[in-house]
Amino acid sequence: MRPRFYVPDLDATAARVPLPDDEAEHLARVLRLGVGAEVEVFDGRGGLWLAEVVETGRRSAAVRALEAVTPAPEIAIAVDLVISVLKADKMDDVVRDAVMLGVTGIHPVISERSEISLSAVEKSQRVSRWQRIAISSAKQCGRAVVPVVHPAVTWAAYLSESVGAVRLICVEPSAGPPSTPRDPVGPPFMGGRVSTMRDIPKPLAVHVIVGPEGGWAPVELTAALSAGAVPLSLGGRTLRADAAPLVALTALLTTWSEL
Amino acid sequence: MRPRFYVPDLDATAARVPLPDDEAEHLARVLRLGVGAEVEVFDGRGGLWLAEVVETGRRSAAVRALEAVTPAPEIAIAVDLVISVLKADKMDDVVRDAVMLGVTGIHPVISERSEISLSAVEKSQRVSRWQRIAISSAKQCGRAVVPVVHPAVTWAAYLSESVGAVRLICVEPSAGPPSTPRDPVGPPFMGGRVSTMRDIPKPLAVHVIVGPEGGWAPVELTAALSAGAVPLSLGGRTLRADAAPLVALTALLTTWSEL
Repeated sequence: MRPRFYVPDLDATAARVPLPDDEAEHLARVLRLGVGAEVEVFDGRGGLWLAEVVETGRRSAAVRALEAVTPAPEIAIAVDLVISVLKADKMDDVVRDAVMLGVTGIHPVISERSEISLSAVEKSQRVSRWQRIAISSAKQCGRAVVPVVHPAVTWAAYLSESVGAVRLICVEPSAGPPSTPRDPVGPPFMGGRVSTMRDIPKPLAVHVIVGPEGGWAPVELTAALSAGAVPLSLGGRTLRADAAPLVALTALLTTWSEL
Repeated sequence: MRPRFYVPDLDATAARVPLPDDEAEHLARVLRLGVGAEVEVFDGRGGLWLAEVVETGRRSAAVRALEAVTPAPEIAIAVDLVISVLKADKMDDVVRDAVMLGVTGIHPVISERSEISLSAVEKSQRVSRWQRIAISSAKQCGRAVVPVVHPAVTWAAYLSESVGAVRLICVEPSAGPPSTPRDPVGPPFMGGRVSTMRDIPKPLAVHVIVGPEGGWAPVELTAALSAGAVPLSLGGRTLRADAAPLVALTALLTTWSEL
């Protein structure tokens, strides 16, 4: 695989495309590529090109696009992951994996049982870190689209947004066993019903919502259902919080023939 | 959730069921439970009981089964994960997650690009460690079945076994894009075709095979196909080696309505 560089304002018709500082440094100082080296550049919005290096400096580099290349396929619908912020390295893995699976965006939320506060997320500039991980993961998995990592918000703030998407909130097996052929609508759940994958018709846009290690507080679940979120069962076995996003996304994409 | 203890030779009709040493120590010294405490015990073969503690010592404990409890549902078919051994903590996570998803067994294999040798796996008693992780994960996810972690073997040795199961070997996107409605059989691959999830009818028993970080050596793939393994695409985006098992298992279980 050729080294890939992210150039957000890429003009593929220009004779000289300068790379952003960090990408240039990676090209020139880490990989030690010189003029004439073949690389790939992508604009994060779906454009990917074969390119050659035309200039390198101590911390600068420029390339020229040679021809368009077909990137890894994108999902035909918009799938966003809404995730109650997990501990540091687990959250990094979740961002990386969600990008690999093809999400359009990631929304970190702070819920009652999150292990970190909103101000701590903001102070530690975590969102910038997750955005860099999203770029790196896009490079690795072959996507030419860089998903957006949205600013972290409280659960209440997230629910008050108009997202223009179906909201699916993943619930624990204790919310009731998944529906069976004998009981196709499933058990009652907070005045409604828990859906399974098969019940969810393929939407144009969806937010897949995964809770914290300790689960949602009842008042948070109630607020989600009031905001129109559909409770979704991920099966009868309890999943670890850091594995649940990958399982939920994979199962939904498989159901909708979009893996 | 009540504390759960694993008692492989459990006799639910006995007035006094002694716990194995490590489980007894956990009950008495870590959780500090006393006589009369309510716990759950399971035999690893599908039996789960509500029980009460009837005796505790410094490092011993005994319980009495009160009534059978319904455990988390098991998959109706036998799904084994065959995995080229990954680095330490990643492999631990893979074992944990595979058990959560409901596998019947785990087969660690050493392939050409594995990051550890067979003798190193044997010397470090990794298989015992993974078996303990499998027990712990069964407790956490609510299963009363403990999947078997088989001894690590070389790739050639694994392929020479008669497993009585459909072998599905996960291949990289570079093996060809997944099949599309226009090209339902997919692109050619080493003289055959790469299948997608939808092509695989639900088997009675299946081995899902996932390769190392660096992928399979061509000679290893050829040997797999000669042994009857079916190449399976996990979609067009390259997955990290430690995420691939979870994605493959989830996608297949979803396809077969067994999540």
